[in-house]
Amino acid sequence: MHQAPDFHRSLDDGGAPTPHTDPQATDTPTAPPLYEQLAQRLAQLIGSGAFKAGQRLPSVRESAAQQGVSISTVLQAYRQLEERGLVQARPKSGYFVRASQRSIKQPGLSTPPPRSFSLERQSRSDVFAMLHQPGDRASFGGYTPDHNGMFDGDRLRVAVARAARLHRHSLLQYNKADAGTPALREAVARRALHLGCALDANDIVITASCIQAVSLCLSAVTRPGDVVALESPTFFGYLDLLKALGLRALEIPTHPRTGLSLPALELALDTQPVKAVLVTPTLSNPVGAVMPLAAKQRLVRLLAQRQVALIEDVVFNDLLANDERRRAAKSFDQDGGVMVCGSFSKTLAPGLRLGWVAPGRWRDAVSTQKRLQGAANNVVLEHALADLLTQGGYEAHLRRLHAQLQQRLGEARKLIAQSFPVGTRVSNPPSGYSLWVELEPGFDSVALFQHCLAQGITFGPGSWFTATNRYRNCMRLSFSGQWGAVEQAALQEIGYAARQLMRTSPSRTTPPQASEPLVSA
Amino acid sequence: MHQAPDFHRSLDDGGAPTPHTDPQATDTPTAPPLYEQLAQRLAQLIGSGAFKAGQRLPSVRESAAQQGVSISTVLQAYRQLEERGLVQARPKSGYFVRASQRSIKQPGLSTPPPRSFSLERQSRSDVFAMLHQPGDRASFGGYTPDHNGMFDGDRLRVAVARAARLHRHSLLQYNKADAGTPALREAVARRALHLGCALDANDIVITASCIQAVSLCLSAVTRPGDVVALESPTFFGYLDLLKALGLRALEIPTHPRTGLSLPALELALDTQPVKAVLVTPTLSNPVGAVMPLAAKQRLVRLLAQRQVALIEDVVFNDLLANDERRRAAKSFDQDGGVMVCGSFSKTLAPGLRLGWVAPGRWRDAVSTQKRLQGAANNVVLEHALADLLTQGGYEAHLRRLHAQLQQRLGEARKLIAQSFPVGTRVSNPPSGYSLWVELEPGFDSVALFQHCLAQGITFGPGSWFTATNRYRNCMRLSFSGQWGAVEQAALQEIGYAARQLMRTSPSRTTPPQASEPLVSA
Repeated sequence: MHQAPDFHRSLDDGGAPTPHTDPQATDTPTAPPLYEQLAQRLAQLIGSGAFKAGQRLPSVRESAAQQGVSISTVLQAYRQLEERGLVQARPKSGYFVRASQRSIKQPGLSTPPPRSFSLERQSRSDVFAMLHQPGDRASFGGYTPDHNGMFDGDRLRVAVARAARLHRHSLLQYNKADAGTPALREAVARRALHLGCALDANDIVITASCIQAVSLCLSAVTRPGDVVALESPTFFGYLDLLKALGLRALEIPTHPRTGLSLPALELALDTQPVKAVLVTPTLSNPVGAVMPLAAKQRLVRLLAQRQVALIEDVVFNDLLANDERRRAAKSFDQDGGVMVCGSFSKTLAPGLRLGWVAPGRWRDAVSTQKRLQGAANNVVLEHALADLLTQGGYEAHLRRLHAQLQQRLGEARKLIAQSFPVGTRVSNPPSGYSLWVELEPGFDSVALFQHCLAQGITFGPGSWFTATNRYRNCMRLSFSGQWGAVEQAALQEIGYAARQLMRTSPSRTTPPQASEPLVSA
Repeated sequence: MHQAPDFHRSLDDGGAPTPHTDPQATDTPTAPPLYEQLAQRLAQLIGSGAFKAGQRLPSVRESAAQQGVSISTVLQAYRQLEERGLVQARPKSGYFVRASQRSIKQPGLSTPPPRSFSLERQSRSDVFAMLHQPGDRASFGGYTPDHNGMFDGDRLRVAVARAARLHRHSLLQYNKADAGTPALREAVARRALHLGCALDANDIVITASCIQAVSLCLSAVTRPGDVVALESPTFFGYLDLLKALGLRALEIPTHPRTGLSLPALELALDTQPVKAVLVTPTLSNPVGAVMPLAAKQRLVRLLAQRQVALIEDVVFNDLLANDERRRAAKSFDQDGGVMVCGSFSKTLAPGLRLGWVAPGRWRDAVSTQKRLQGAANNVVLEHALADLLTQGGYEAHLRRLHAQLQQRLGEARKLIAQSFPVGTRVSNPPSGYSLWVELEPGFDSVALFQHCLAQGITFGPGSWFTATNRYRNCMRLSFSGQWGAVEQAALQEIGYAARQLMRTSPSRTTPPQASEPLVSA
């Protein structure tokens, strides 16, 4: 009964969590030792339900025989699992899978320092270089989608070829519509209904990306030296952009479930010359928070009262399953003070390079700025995207994508709970491409990154996501790419490396709390 | 012998220069009177060679009978032609086409004020609005190409559809190459050989347009408040861009044939804190100057000595027939101080929205800035363009285009010589899309623009092309669009309206010099 079939495979015949079949792989000094490999394998089987709660693990002797390892290796592995709260030892009976695995804790409200930071001297280009380090085994770094599974390349090709046929004359003309071709603006306006926004096609300006939209908005409402408030942690692309525009970043306490703290924002507005607030109220990046609807409404009202521009990023909203949660803060905008920015890079095709903005009362300024920068778009592509959005099938695709992401994030959370150090906290977003992982204070995720990079595994160290000195003990793990046995093993390896690092790193400031189970009571 | 067949058509049956068949058209107060219509028709026949030098015009009586107009109308028309130097009266013999029509004068060296101007309060958006006024009869305003003749839409469509097929997976990915896809960068590097530049693909960054390339270069080397030197007059898009970036414009005296005055530039560098020089050394816009090769070399050396960045626009270079004249200043760059910007909008397809820059030693800064602004390009389009440039046939297309432009500009110059006020000067560029026309000092081309706009005809008033108060007596006439009988008649009508305006406008500061023939001795 306890013999889940997979477990019979020995650690040598491919049952090992490391995907390398090269036997030398386990000889490298950084590869997990045998007992850890065994523990990871068992943890995975427990996580997948192959070993159920209450079930007895094979006896130490049985396991040793099956896996061709020594009894002490099996004992070490079982103690490892016990320490991580996955099994419990019953004297004279053996090791049993724990009855209930309660949810792993989420990180709490962030507490960035209450002052703005200039990014001028921050070497933020390192962030991008690190993000694009090749993870030849597994990349949990960027949001590059798994093109084998998530999106439909052929459908895109057909749409582009069709648009090229129908609109080839547009290739011979300058795009006279600064704001983008009416067909696409109308399609975007129709999609905005799902965000609760009744936009007119004329309210919308097409851009090359969401970040270009945000860039144009910032250019319209700020000047170098101005202060922009953001979530904390926040998307590193925003911080790079603030740096490029010579703006100062003021990070606002943010909760991983409910997003930007409105009392904290209000305090900041009282005490700092904030020119604009740049926020992702729905599935914020990196923590995946969704502001409650009432909070979105209060945010808009608060900024309208203060005459501060709200730049809202809705690039992830469509990854949620229902329109109520998707609803944008912009839907509460009454005086054009909200500039809402989106794209279809997270839901349709990152490589199209088309985004959009409804810039409220700054519509003309944004449109003009776009033209002055020579950033007009290709009309054929605009028509191809309009076509894709209008054809139907987009909502069905979103539903599939949502289900896929929920499953991935759930599996990834389980693996993290099993393999990461005791005391690790993980965000629990309702959708999106990533999890935010918080280790003990003093943990050095940059050192972990360097270690993992050498093993062909990448992720996003937490320090990327702030202009302050926070979040070095955090990391963003993204699951947008391929997700299979290789990646799952690599994720466990990050956890193992983190545990190793906590044992050896002098930078760790607090002692490990071995008695606190990761899967807490 | 003097009866050129076209002349037999009366002014009523379509021989009139106005394309309106609505008989009321000639009743509007601004339509040319009958004698003017007759003079224009005859001028056109003289220009086209239907009436040859030394040939006698039909007698006044004959003409009156043929055209169904009064003798005094014909007399007025003949005197008009005499005044404009096209015919001469021989007592008792009649009116004869003048033996030699010498070339119309070109404008001289410009003399902008030797100080920099902030563009902050200049309402430059008016320029764009005016440029895009619909000229429902004829547009001499923008550089929108004649898609019926110049470029090949089907070839573009095929290239885009093919690239979509071959590279559809790129649509599912973020464009990891900030600088653009290697295939296109290599194709651009090969094309740069025609500019005398030995560039490596890695020197090149792909952009959405030439103006975006210039924008990125300016962002890399300047900060708000800095001074940028330009030709005078200069492309209004540059001035708009300087305004958007908060930069000051310092215009440098420029000759319509040889371009930027190097002594004047050197003086400016001695006296002003110039941060960058933004110039189009080959077929500058609007005057069409081509700097001699030695001057291009001296320009590069001068700026290298002064450690001032040179931003070179080569968007028109390929419109010249031979590589010697096409040669870019960049080809003399030894220390990476020249940032050369181009696109294929003027030679292949304005609607592709792809340009490029070789930013010399600012390559990384430009590439990073492009990424930060979220301005990555669609890889499918990049491949389509690479394909078009590599296929062969591009040089043959350029030769056809060059011949077409030379013919248009020649025909347009003749018509301007015949129909514009005495004293008008016209640039004589070796290629390009436009002519720069200088009327007498005090002439108001904005008033002329408003008048012509009401008649469905547009062009570019000279005041668009400067940050100073110069060139209100000038205009840019562009011949990129359709060019046939309708447009030729419309061009003559601008000339007639200009003559009318000189007779009536109080803003004219100098008296008309009726005795100076436009086609001067």
